[in-house]
Amino acid sequence: MTDLAAVKAALKSQAVETPSWAYGNSGTRFKVFAQEGVPRTAREKLADAAKVHEFTGVAPTVALHIPWDEVDDYAALAGFAEGHGVRLGAVNSNTFQDDAYRLGSICHPEAAVRRKALDHLLECVDIMDATGSRDLKLWFADGTNYPGQDDIRARQDRLAEGLAAVYERLGGNQRMLLEYKFFEPAFYTTDVPDWGTAYAHCLKLGPRAQVVVDTGHHAPGTNIEFIVATLLREDRLGGFDFNSRFYADDDLMVGAADPFQLFRIMYEVVRGGGFDSDVAFMLDQCHNIEAKIPAIIRSVMNVQEATAKALLVDRDALAAAQAAGDVLGANAVLMDAYNTDVRPLLREVREEMDLDPEPLTAYARSGWAEKIVAERVGGRQAGWGA
Amino acid sequence: MTDLAAVKAALKSQAVETPSWAYGNSGTRFKVFAQEGVPRTAREKLADAAKVHEFTGVAPTVALHIPWDEVDDYAALAGFAEGHGVRLGAVNSNTFQDDAYRLGSICHPEAAVRRKALDHLLECVDIMDATGSRDLKLWFADGTNYPGQDDIRARQDRLAEGLAAVYERLGGNQRMLLEYKFFEPAFYTTDVPDWGTAYAHCLKLGPRAQVVVDTGHHAPGTNIEFIVATLLREDRLGGFDFNSRFYADDDLMVGAADPFQLFRIMYEVVRGGGFDSDVAFMLDQCHNIEAKIPAIIRSVMNVQEATAKALLVDRDALAAAQAAGDVLGANAVLMDAYNTDVRPLLREVREEMDLDPEPLTAYARSGWAEKIVAERVGGRQAGWGA
Amino acid sequence: MTDLAAVKAALKSQAVETPSWAYGNSGTRFKVFAQEGVPRTAREKLADAAKVHEFTGVAPTVALHIPWDEVDDYAALAGFAEGHGVRLGAVNSNTFQDDAYRLGSICHPEAAVRRKALDHLLECVDIMDATGSRDLKLWFADGTNYPGQDDIRARQDRLAEGLAAVYERLGGNQRMLLEYKFFEPAFYTTDVPDWGTAYAHCLKLGPRAQVVVDTGHHAPGTNIEFIVATLLREDRLGGFDFNSRFYADDDLMVGAADPFQLFRIMYEVVRGGGFDSDVAFMLDQCHNIEAKIPAIIRSVMNVQEATAKALLVDRDALAAAQAAGDVLGANAVLMDAYNTDVRPLLREVREEMDLDPEPLTAYARSGWAEKIVAERVGGRQAGWGA
Amino acid sequence: MTDLAAVKAALKSQAVETPSWAYGNSGTRFKVFAQEGVPRTAREKLADAAKVHEFTGVAPTVALHIPWDEVDDYAALAGFAEGHGVRLGAVNSNTFQDDAYRLGSICHPEAAVRRKALDHLLECVDIMDATGSRDLKLWFADGTNYPGQDDIRARQDRLAEGLAAVYERLGGNQRMLLEYKFFEPAFYTTDVPDWGTAYAHCLKLGPRAQVVVDTGHHAPGTNIEFIVATLLREDRLGGFDFNSRFYADDDLMVGAADPFQLFRIMYEVVRGGGFDSDVAFMLDQCHNIEAKIPAIIRSVMNVQEATAKALLVDRDALAAAQAAGDVLGANAVLMDAYNTDVRPLLREVREEMDLDPEPLTAYARSGWAEKIVAERVGGRQAGWGA
Repeated sequence: MTDLAAVKAALKSQAVETPSWAYGNSGTRFKVFAQEGVPRTAREKLADAAKVHEFTGVAPTVALHIPWDEVDDYAALAGFAEGHGVRLGAVNSNTFQDDAYRLGSICHPEAAVRRKALDHLLECVDIMDATGSRDLKLWFADGTNYPGQDDIRARQDRLAEGLAAVYERLGGNQRMLLEYKFFEPAFYTTDVPDWGTAYAHCLKLGPRAQVVVDTGHHAPGTNIEFIVATLLREDRLGGFDFNSRFYADDDLMVGAADPFQLFRIMYEVVRGGGFDSDVAFMLDQCHNIEAKIPAIIRSVMNVQEATAKALLVDRDALAAAQAAGDVLGANAVLMDAYNTDVRPLLREVREEMDLDPEPLTAYARSGWAEKIVAERVGGRQAGWGA
Repeated sequence: MTDLAAVKAALKSQAVETPSWAYGNSGTRFKVFAQEGVPRTAREKLADAAKVHEFTGVAPTVALHIPWDEVDDYAALAGFAEGHGVRLGAVNSNTFQDDAYRLGSICHPEAAVRRKALDHLLECVDIMDATGSRDLKLWFADGTNYPGQDDIRARQDRLAEGLAAVYERLGGNQRMLLEYKFFEPAFYTTDVPDWGTAYAHCLKLGPRAQVVVDTGHHAPGTNIEFIVATLLREDRLGGFDFNSRFYADDDLMVGAADPFQLFRIMYEVVRGGGFDSDVAFMLDQCHNIEAKIPAIIRSVMNVQEATAKALLVDRDALAAAQAAGDVLGANAVLMDAYNTDVRPLLREVREEMDLDPEPLTAYARSGWAEKIVAERVGGRQAGWGA
Repeated sequence: MTDLAAVKAALKSQAVETPSWAYGNSGTRFKVFAQEGVPRTAREKLADAAKVHEFTGVAPTVALHIPWDEVDDYAALAGFAEGHGVRLGAVNSNTFQDDAYRLGSICHPEAAVRRKALDHLLECVDIMDATGSRDLKLWFADGTNYPGQDDIRARQDRLAEGLAAVYERLGGNQRMLLEYKFFEPAFYTTDVPDWGTAYAHCLKLGPRAQVVVDTGHHAPGTNIEFIVATLLREDRLGGFDFNSRFYADDDLMVGAADPFQLFRIMYEVVRGGGFDSDVAFMLDQCHNIEAKIPAIIRSVMNVQEATAKALLVDRDALAAAQAAGDVLGANAVLMDAYNTDVRPLLREVREEMDLDPEPLTAYARSGWAEKIVAERVGGRQAGWGA
Repeated sequence: MTDLAAVKAALKSQAVETPSWAYGNSGTRFKVFAQEGVPRTAREKLADAAKVHEFTGVAPTVALHIPWDEVDDYAALAGFAEGHGVRLGAVNSNTFQDDAYRLGSICHPEAAVRRKALDHLLECVDIMDATGSRDLKLWFADGTNYPGQDDIRARQDRLAEGLAAVYERLGGNQRMLLEYKFFEPAFYTTDVPDWGTAYAHCLKLGPRAQVVVDTGHHAPGTNIEFIVATLLREDRLGGFDFNSRFYADDDLMVGAADPFQLFRIMYEVVRGGGFDSDVAFMLDQCHNIEAKIPAIIRSVMNVQEATAKALLVDRDALAAAQAAGDVLGANAVLMDAYNTDVRPLLREVREEMDLDPEPLTAYARSGWAEKIVAERVGGRQAGWGA
């Protein structure tokens, strides 16, 4: 039997971090379609993120991306966020959009480029000091496009050296979250292609180096919940970058492509104690053709629904069926939770949190969309390069 | 026994079309790295393409992309090309870089957008009339990102209607080459995702509607040479867009990722009579981090090497081993050709064509690279959006 | 608004064919684990299948596999089935388990082997005449393991010739259902690898040659519902072989790996009119480690649940959102149906059909499992080779 | 410049272990095709393996599989091998072909089954003591087929416990080689699915626990040479199970599907010092439709050819191009070695080793194939279950 009060309490305490860049324009290599009302500044992104939190109640922090969210005064930015009811979250570095990084950043064959990249990473820690952020999230676009282009192993040596310098700089409660990615933008090798590579580096760095699982960054067919279970068992799961994919790193709304997979992932988080630990639940998505703020609200709701189902799994019944070797029975216990329509439960949870039970319609009614379209005219819209 | 004189004659007569856009800048959604000396106009692209032909002898035509290569006077552009020793090749349409195309072009739910797309396609045929191009190459970025976003079947109806209108407009010896693509930029459905869909549409249109095989546009593990053999058997292989891939549509130099696959494809072309037919051999690649002209020369050479090996297969011995059910023997006949180092043969072929046997070193010596870096200063470099 | 009475009527009229071989033992190349109570004869398989129909009400027919279900008197077998409340369904041929078929069957390089295979296929039509079966389901294990092993194109010629001979033999209302498969047991080429190849052959044969979609037989990432929509649009969808997969042709219970995908497939069936046509819904699965009859009951229920959700989609609302270009709204309409817990509805449907609302518990209570374990002792259990 | 004498010396010293089971029958889940002359006993397998070594000169050891090669007296078996010019190599365990292992072996939910599996593993170490084998190769078919079937994390705990007990038992110079596999025979989770999992377990066990890379056991698109480079850098690459694949674990002859990949792998071995270390080069293949001994000879030759090309890479030129950021130049250095026809060099090497330069034709001339067909009549042929 599941304890419904405990389930509700867990759902109320969940925190999903939204990324500042998802509020801006994004696209594919073929085209970026601009939308009306898109933010032009970091503050406008935070204002949008605050709306997501206002209507969902579970999106209290916002991830920054440097230099996309570069400002003169980060303490002031943090204050602005708090004034809007949210806080600044993880700081994300960017070592892929400068011409110097054509052949890599901290894995680049030239020491000068590596130094430039390292300086940027250290600057990100400075910003964390100013914002009070706990997590430095590192994703490296480093890799090669052609066999022979660079020395695979030497690049690992350079990577290890760069990471060590950054780890050394971290303050006492700051963490390094190392992300891996199967491919893209590099097409032959990626310098951190899989969880094993990220894990091996984290092991050498120390306990505050943790692996981030981006749900879109795996080979076809990869069992992501297995990785989640394994990293939790090793105490190395730092957090998630949520999104979903049909093919490659499609960066669709989390839960949109395979809601059953998201449920299985959340079940392993619940089962592995990740819900009561420091595992960070972050969105990392693109909204290329759909309205951005509603897409983010929907994504937060998708995480909630998967979490609710995971919490509803009758773990005693499951354990009993597993111990009995009852394949169909054990599977049925899991599926029973998955097949439950948890939307009524989440409406209750929201009402108990003094929220509108329907975040999307409440947002639509709020007039925010019309307001930003009217007000955010002129200037340069935020995008991946902005 | 293979007839070496015939092999050489075939190699001398091969024609690989290079794409105007490969001479310009390209990149991933994360970053476009600009290079020095990159063309700023259609004419500068043609001048670069002429260099590739000058040093390889087998790249006599250049594909255009409209509107990227839009000019006021296409007949004059054709004359310019001829003055540089090359000719204009296939015309490629673009129905993906206008804000109107956010939800598709000729498959878009709104008739007005479909009309706009159709007008562009018809304009491309006008351009073909002016340039004397035989082939209209159609690739549609159309598709959907989310389940339910649009009606899969209705989009096919719209596609059929649009293609019919274009086919109707074609002149007597003009062809429509319909390209398929597994995914990207659409992430849930692609309106022409596989050869079967392209083939079914071509069947209904008529004999001058033909399928184009882009070697990067398949699901993981797809046996491309099977598709090539099948389309040749059905008399529906219009041509190739050559490139190579490790993961998705990586658009690397053809032959760079899996040279054995390229050989197997070329073998099916040879075996299926495609070498003596109207099958168009076109490159369609990106050179994001490597020097563009040398990369294209190298790609043309890669096609030549794969072709040479395919031509060297001892087809009598192969047929005998196949008929005898000798699995290892038949495989060995094929591998014997593949394992042959054909570079000496190709050097001979080039010398007999009065070319330098080493196109890359000859190009490097030519001073063209330095000349364009010095001269092409200012103005806006060509790129995917330019 | 969906019409609930119509939804219920559709669910009551649904028919899911179960395969005789799923009641017998199966396994991987590594091991077949035998289970107690497994049938030893075709009649015992039919008796088990009758139980599935007894408890679900929607599994009225049973597919045969020849020679696995070979009997002296097929009319008598049909009578036995009817006596148990079920009917004989599609006849499945087997041209892969004779030593002669090492290099193929109707695509084999030797005419004698092709003749042997053809004779078997014609015999299957004889059996259809005796059983009254409408459908001949053809899956060919034909293909090659190594490049060069056989001539890809010549094999297509042989395939076309063999299929034509079989099609010619079919009676007026008999159909040929041609199945495609991406790979396995052949590892380099498969002679009918994709829907395009099956479709091209069916087109040439005639209207009663139709394509079968086995949900496990695709490349990673393939959008199966697109294929379903396309084949329905072309009037060439003969039916389904349902199962599910995480990796290759895993042959797990349908709906077990990706229930959302199954829903999307069923939605395209509903949308394309396949529910009111001759599209055959067949299971084709292996139950290697789980109890067989309950697994099949569960699979039938999974098809029902996906169908119910597909029928519940508010198609007017969906069409309106699609026409408006409302990406999130259209997706939400689809997801609203998917997220609905349809188990209460299906319990109602069963009660209205005078069935126990819970088929699995009713089966468990029935004592059939214990009875067959007790009675089916000695003899040779049925399996893939039996 | 490469030192040709050193290349030849390296090629002469290479040792490729062949697996006893590859000499016996194998097949897919659909059919095992029996071949004439196939061994019936462990000694007959060794006799065949001795022929492979006789004609190639570089296959001096033979891997055993227990219980497939179970004999009463292993010391006598070792003596028999030596009498035929070969030695016994790695001992491979089998915890997947007993009915007890339906739900796993050392990860099974029941302690009794885990104990049974562990006892078998310990017995394998006993056999190693008798045969003088250095390596215990562990591949576990353990996993689950359905979500929920068992507890992913608890299975890791059981795995760790079992491995520790085996590691503890190893003698001073004995090693544990832990193999990972993406999927099959388990279809939902595999208990050691990737190199990261194997690596994490090995780290905890100790330095003599090493990872085995089976070239067929990866997700589509996985960059295997990256894994090889990483494991060598971590000093955890125990060896290879060579084979090749187009789709899943197809187990074709190594080098047959992607010879360029095999070359890249061997290059990383050479570059990482693996050629001068304890990295074991083992074949692990199936020869389902092709003649077995010639297929194994061919495979050994394929490894040799890839190795020769890897040794021929001009590493100074490569390093210079890499340091200069010359993408095309660095790629060209690698491709220059790959495109070299190394068969003449290997013929020379064989002649210097007093071998026939053409192992396959020499074997064909030897009469061994005819002899074993004539003599090995009656009895039960060896196969995966035999």
